[in-house]
Amino acid sequence: MNFNLKGAIEILERTPHTLDALLSGLSSEWLNGNEGEGTWNAAEVVDHLIDGEEKNWIPRLKFILQEGESKPFPLFDRFAHLNVSESLSLEEKLEVFKTLRMKNLAMLRGITDLEIYFEKTGLHPAFGPVRVRELISTWAVHDLTHISQISRVLANRYRTDVGPWIEYLGILKK
Amino acid sequence: MNFNLKGAIEILERTPHTLDALLSGLSSEWLNGNEGEGTWNAAEVVDHLIDGEEKNWIPRLKFILQEGESKPFPLFDRFAHLNVSESLSLEEKLEVFKTLRMKNLAMLRGITDLEIYFEKTGLHPAFGPVRVRELISTWAVHDLTHISQISRVLANRYRTDVGPWIEYLGILKK
Repeated sequence: MNFNLKGAIEILERTPHTLDALLSGLSSEWLNGNEGEGTWNAAEVVDHLIDGEEKNWIPRLKFILQEGESKPFPLFDRFAHLNVSESLSLEEKLEVFKTLRMKNLAMLRGITDLEIYFEKTGLHPAFGPVRVRELISTWAVHDLTHISQISRVLANRYRTDVGPWIEYLGILKK
Repeated sequence: MNFNLKGAIEILERTPHTLDALLSGLSSEWLNGNEGEGTWNAAEVVDHLIDGEEKNWIPRLKFILQEGESKPFPLFDRFAHLNVSESLSLEEKLEVFKTLRMKNLAMLRGITDLEIYFEKTGLHPAFGPVRVRELISTWAVHDLTHISQISRVLANRYRTDVGPWIEYLGILKK
C-alpha cells in the first residue's frame, strides 16, 4: 500500500494551482478544443471536477462513515455537469473549484482519527464494497487523470501541425 | 492548420508554472516514483525538458533558418539527460527550466518576421524535410505530452490503492 493521508493531500491541494497555471488566460482557440463529438473541452473537465467536489468525494466519505455497507451510496452522475447552463468564465470556474477544494480538504483534515476508518467499507452501487482509503486514493488519481486529459485535449489541436514529429509524440496516439 | 505563433507561445510560457504547481514541494515518495525499469520519474522528465531547451528547439530553429536543407541537423539524444550527474534538487531544476524557457521565448519573439519562414524546411536526420512551423508546434505539444506523462507517473503510485475504481481511471490503463 502506497496510500497515506498526507501524501494524498499533497496531490489534492496542488490541483487547483496546476489547472490555474495550465489554463488561466489561455485564448478561446485552445479552450474550445476537444477530441471530437462526445468529448470534453478543458472547461467541461473543470465543470466535472467542480461537480465531484460538490457531490462525490466528501459526500461519499461521510456516507461511508455514517452508513457503512447498510445501503449503497447515491450514484454520481459523471455527466451531470454537461446539463448545467454555462454562465461562468473559465477563470471563474477555476476559482469555484479552488474554493470548494480548499473547503473539502479542510473538512478531510478535520475528521478526528480518520486513520482508524481507512479500512471501513461502504457500498458502491457498481463495485460493491469499497474502502475509505480507496476512495481518497481515487480522489487523488482522479485529479491526475483529468490533468492528463486536459493536456491531451490541448495537444490534439496541433495533431496535424506537428507534421512527421507525430511519431515521437505519444500524447497524439490515443 | 491550427498553428500560430501567439497560440504556441501561450502553451510554451505556461509549462514552467504548471510544473511548479504540480511538483514543487512534493515529497520524495511521489518524486521517486516511475513506471518501472527504463521509465522516468518526474525529475528525469524535467531534466529532459531542460535538455530540450539547451540543445533541441531553439538550436534547431536557428539551424533551419541558417542551413535550410543543406545538411541535416545534429541528432538530439533524447536520453542524454540520464547520463548527467544529478546534483540539483527538483526545485532547482524547475528554476533552471523556467529560466531557459523564458530566455528561449524571448529569443523566439525576437526573430524578425519569423512568420515569413514558417514554411521554410530543414532536414531532420530521421524524418527528412520538416517545416519551421512544425518544429514550433512540436515544441508546444512536447510540453503537453510530458505534463501528461508526469501526471501518469504520479498516478501510477496508487495503482493498487484505488481498488475497484481502477476501472474508471483511464490513466492507470496504460
